[in-house]
Amino acid sequence: MTDQISADHLKLTLYIANKNYSSWSLRPWIAMKTKNIVFTEHLLQFDEATGHAHFIEYSPTKKVPALKIEEEGKEPVIICESLAILEVIADLFPEAGLWPVDVMERARARAFAAEMHGGFFGLRGSCPMNIRREIKRLDLDPYSAAAVVKNVERIEQIWRECLDASGGPFLFGSFGAVDAMFAPVINRFEKYELTDSEVFHAYRFAIKTLPAWKEWEEEALNEPWVVEEDEA
Amino acid sequence: MTDQISADHLKLTLYIANKNYSSWSLRPWIAMKTKNIVFTEHLLQFDEATGHAHFIEYSPTKKVPALKIEEEGKEPVIICESLAILEVIADLFPEAGLWPVDVMERARARAFAAEMHGGFFGLRGSCPMNIRREIKRLDLDPYSAAAVVKNVERIEQIWRECLDASGGPFLFGSFGAVDAMFAPVINRFEKYELTDSEVFHAYRFAIKTLPAWKEWEEEALNEPWVVEEDEA
Repeated sequence: MTDQISADHLKLTLYIANKNYSSWSLRPWIAMKTKNIVFTEHLLQFDEATGHAHFIEYSPTKKVPALKIEEEGKEPVIICESLAILEVIADLFPEAGLWPVDVMERARARAFAAEMHGGFFGLRGSCPMNIRREIKRLDLDPYSAAAVVKNVERIEQIWRECLDASGGPFLFGSFGAVDAMFAPVINRFEKYELTDSEVFHAYRFAIKTLPAWKEWEEEALNEPWVVEEDEA
Repeated sequence: MTDQISADHLKLTLYIANKNYSSWSLRPWIAMKTKNIVFTEHLLQFDEATGHAHFIEYSPTKKVPALKIEEEGKEPVIICESLAILEVIADLFPEAGLWPVDVMERARARAFAAEMHGGFFGLRGSCPMNIRREIKRLDLDPYSAAAVVKNVERIEQIWRECLDASGGPFLFGSFGAVDAMFAPVINRFEKYELTDSEVFHAYRFAIKTLPAWKEWEEEALNEPWVVEEDEA
């Protein structure tokens, strides 16, 4: 077993939502687990009826993930936004190597992570992460379908460019923050049968053989709560 | 005049679009100008008819801003996404102080920057940046109006929290990347008369007295190209 990384003076609590659906929660979770960073997980169930009103108790944006950082003798700090959580983890645990060491490589990794953070709305809107879903194509209207295709093409372009340059198995060689950002896309590409490309199969293998992925998947499959119809 | 910062071995070119409209372009531009970082500006005109097809020559995402970094004897690197451009500038020029030095402060600044990067769609959709616009309220449908109000409230909550803690004039004291991310919001709050709060007036003063803001505004006012109706 790999050594766990913990910061003696810090206590970390990661607030997440349902593992079957919450792609944003998966991002920092899979990064922290894969890098063996010690944290407490606190799962909040989605509640569509109230717009997840109870999240406000843990997250000032009412969104998950949120990371609570407690330091002896100081006010706790809550960091929202998956990308910002990855950044603070990278800052607190430089030995985890969440970003490439080379400044230009790091810049490229951050650009792709930011592109995922603020884009790909066609894919995100039409093809939500759903671990329990059966593999089945969607019947989308032509406008939505075109948006999804465009997103898939761009994501595969990024993956191809990175894997060709690094040699894989992850986008910049070893697993990093940018892989955490793209991990949920693997589920979407697979469950909605969006692609059958070589780069998808190679990158899916890398992501899905991570012990942290398997742990998340297992827990999602066994979650007792269903928010929406699994069939769409 | 403040000393300019340049990296002898690097040549930076920032691709932006029309200064009147391109809020994303303004973000890294105002940061680099305010921090006296030497770069070449390359302005590409929006072309709605083609979906800005000509952007692809300069930006692999077909989006601006994009930063080209040229280093003697190496392949040029293109970094897309305003947030990632701010990050690489912060990395290349640590003396510019684009992020707070304290790790927890930096985490908070990045969380707010990421929230802006990936959110506030009501405001962004209904109230696009428009430097030349006359000050006038919008007549929005109730659904859109509610989304804008919610965004304004959250943004003001962030500003209030930051300015109360730092004492201003910028969110974390001196001007940084997070201020660059929120700068275009000042134009939106003003032009669409979205708020009259104390925090807005204080922060607007800080942003609008930046020499870089004035330079951008002056150039936007004198741009010969109109993409869309200024009246909305």
